[in-house]
Amino acid sequence: MTTEDILVANAVDVWKGVFERAEKLFNSLSEEEMEKRVAPDRNRSIYIWGHLTATHDRAIALLGVGERLRPEFDAIFLNSADGMTQLPTVREIRDAWKQVSDRLNAAIVGLSAADWLEKHTAVNQEDFAKEPLRNKLAILLTRTNHLSYHLGQMVLVRS
Amino acid sequence: MTTEDILVANAVDVWKGVFERAEKLFNSLSEEEMEKRVAPDRNRSIYIWGHLTATHDRAIALLGVGERLRPEFDAIFLNSADGMTQLPTVREIRDAWKQVSDRLNAAIVGLSAADWLEKHTAVNQEDFAKEPLRNKLAILLTRTNHLSYHLGQMVLVRS
Repeated sequence: MTTEDILVANAVDVWKGVFERAEKLFNSLSEEEMEKRVAPDRNRSIYIWGHLTATHDRAIALLGVGERLRPEFDAIFLNSADGMTQLPTVREIRDAWKQVSDRLNAAIVGLSAADWLEKHTAVNQEDFAKEPLRNKLAILLTRTNHLSYHLGQMVLVRS
Repeated sequence: MTTEDILVANAVDVWKGVFERAEKLFNSLSEEEMEKRVAPDRNRSIYIWGHLTATHDRAIALLGVGERLRPEFDAIFLNSADGMTQLPTVREIRDAWKQVSDRLNAAIVGLSAADWLEKHTAVNQEDFAKEPLRNKLAILLTRTNHLSYHLGQMVLVRS
């Protein structure tokens, strides 16, 4: 392993740890718990789960590893607050989460250190030349923290 | 910048972003909000703040960049649940948070890519030879996610 390989493997390792913890929680919550708000007047767990699914679906595009799988989730989970639209069922979100996660995780373990250093797809070459941190690794690190942030909330609905 | 420098700068950049967001929240919460539980029967914000302070104090030792500043916080915030012991005041936790954060952040921006690849202090040379991911970067990445996790909770007490 080169030193670049080790640094990238550290980031992938932390992603895997947070992802596994999230999967375990999502598989353990009942439909009733999914309908619960994480705190009074705050989002329901089912909404946050859909929000994470939409965010990870966008990450597939940002990493340049494939077409988006569930772009229709954006209107519900990224551009609308909880309660503004009719949500898909827990079953539908579970299916979407699995589909998106399978694609994203396959991509994450498949990228080389050189790939992670490349620009992500939402920045142009000119800006990237000036800001080399706007690479694919930045997407992985920020999405890992985004998942941790919401995992800290969703765990609160568990009895 | 070498490619190692960029990969490390990505991790430091995400730490800084999460840390700044946390600072902003901690500075904006009132004493009443700090006393609020993040959800029914869960930890109070003040407890989580002390827990983060203790965790970051331990990170100073794990990174090998200095002596611990507040080891007495462990008994209260790492080895006891909220409600089991008398907590320090908001003022005392604020002072400890600042002291620990200043030291930790100075260390984080001061380490080189080669330093981040070194073993952290809780693993021995023999194990590290077999598991090169048990390096200082792993401490930074996991502590960043730990902060994100609890930040997602503490934000829930804000009116």
